[in-house]
Amino acid sequence: MFDFKKYMKIQQRRVNEKLTALLAKTRQKSRLLSAMHYSLMAGGKRIRPVLCISAASAVNDTYVDVLPVACAIECIHTYSLIHDDLPAMDNDDIRRGNPTCHKAFDEATAILAGDALLTLAFEILSDKALSYLPDLQLEIIRILANAAGPFGMIEGQMRDIESETRQLKENELEHLHNLKTGALISASVNAGAILAKATKDQQQQLNVYAQNIGLAFQVIDDVLNVKGDPKRLGKAVGTDSDLQKNTYPGLIGLDRAEEKARDLVQHAVESVQNFDNRAEPLRAIANYIVRRDH
Amino acid sequence: MFDFKKYMKIQQRRVNEKLTALLAKTRQKSRLLSAMHYSLMAGGKRIRPVLCISAASAVNDTYVDVLPVACAIECIHTYSLIHDDLPAMDNDDIRRGNPTCHKAFDEATAILAGDALLTLAFEILSDKALSYLPDLQLEIIRILANAAGPFGMIEGQMRDIESETRQLKENELEHLHNLKTGALISASVNAGAILAKATKDQQQQLNVYAQNIGLAFQVIDDVLNVKGDPKRLGKAVGTDSDLQKNTYPGLIGLDRAEEKARDLVQHAVESVQNFDNRAEPLRAIANYIVRRDH
Repeated sequence: MFDFKKYMKIQQRRVNEKLTALLAKTRQKSRLLSAMHYSLMAGGKRIRPVLCISAASAVNDTYVDVLPVACAIECIHTYSLIHDDLPAMDNDDIRRGNPTCHKAFDEATAILAGDALLTLAFEILSDKALSYLPDLQLEIIRILANAAGPFGMIEGQMRDIESETRQLKENELEHLHNLKTGALISASVNAGAILAKATKDQQQQLNVYAQNIGLAFQVIDDVLNVKGDPKRLGKAVGTDSDLQKNTYPGLIGLDRAEEKARDLVQHAVESVQNFDNRAEPLRAIANYIVRRDH
Repeated sequence: MFDFKKYMKIQQRRVNEKLTALLAKTRQKSRLLSAMHYSLMAGGKRIRPVLCISAASAVNDTYVDVLPVACAIECIHTYSLIHDDLPAMDNDDIRRGNPTCHKAFDEATAILAGDALLTLAFEILSDKALSYLPDLQLEIIRILANAAGPFGMIEGQMRDIESETRQLKENELEHLHNLKTGALISASVNAGAILAKATKDQQQQLNVYAQNIGLAFQVIDDVLNVKGDPKRLGKAVGTDSDLQKNTYPGLIGLDRAEEKARDLVQHAVESVQNFDNRAEPLRAIANYIVRRDH
């Protein structure tokens, strides 16, 4: 029987140790590095890095060191949170139970820490010491830059802000989330799969998996913002309706939103049915998404 | 006789056309792309891209298409300006004679447009369509990520903000500028040189050139902030002393600052004396830096 909790703990520790090492590569102490470290080590669940690692091992259990790529992905994710939390954006004071970066430091430092984490991701990905073939290494950079860039995650965030003043249709909301959250989640799975030399078929199946859990993740985020426990969530609830955000519970009701998330997860699990038990972590992550309470 | 004005015009047009094409690669119209386009096309002098192109042709007049790399560098430079101008940073309303990005759009859009330009740079650099050898392409990505990242440009900007509350020594100010401005200028020259297959000796000489003009550029920027014509500069003057910034005129006086800039440029020109007349653009750019009035 696959022990998901234990698996997550092990992978999270690997990611955290590697991230610490990456930040400590110079002895330099600076306000900038402190702010980057603060947000990077603020207790994130490391879903994206673990997805990258798990996709790789689902394809190929010969050891492939995807950890640097997984950590670069977490740097990109953390930068996006720091900037999203800024007063000019979502104006959040609390993240994962702690003051957000601009509250713990200041706005200028938070903007720069975000910029620095984004750039650091590409330093990590282009590192000479990585053992991937150069063409493969370039492909990973391309996948992540595309997912995080102006035709992916950032466009999603822009649309999220723009849509605060008007009601979206369900397909518009879905497209928004596919950009804002889905693109980087898909890229995480895709990067892991490609590094493990997945076939085109496997890539395709994992892509369906990623798109479904990406959307499920966001639907559940919306649900938790309505009915979650702020203590467990480590952030305020009810903020979406305060900001008049477009959410699934707001659009289709709480019950149908929860049902939609369950359907998406089921679809995700079915899409990797041709994989053997090495895909257990991927199946467990999908199920965890609808079960989570924070 | 080398016609610097004509040369700059030709190169600027090439860069502008390529940047326009890069932004138009999808037909998508969005607020995000409009803001990116607005700042990218706000009349920048394209010094860094032209340095990249000129370094390549100084080494090798066989045609090497460095234009995509030159444009990626301009994206990185423009993102840094957008974020520097934000209210939480330098709080500038005018840049190159026009409202800054957050004034023309809003703060959230400006933050995202900056993020998007930085990420777009790495999309451009990792593009499959580039004809460089994969190892070389990776090296260019590494050089630019290092120069722009938390141990380069962003650390320089952090120190610039931190130093507003205390007086720096001359060597501290120099180190700050080497990070904030020098790192990306050096990377521009270095990237061009490497793409043109410069020898180690040539790289070394071009590196000395770049470091000297990078610092000269900043010293003259400080000088122009004291005595420049706001109409020609396209931005306010006297803002440095308002913000109690550490500047060369403030630290060593206006006359010695101008003398220092001339010395740096002379050193830069001497450092490329072993190059033939294909290095005329580099020499002309160095001389332009101390002559410029905006």
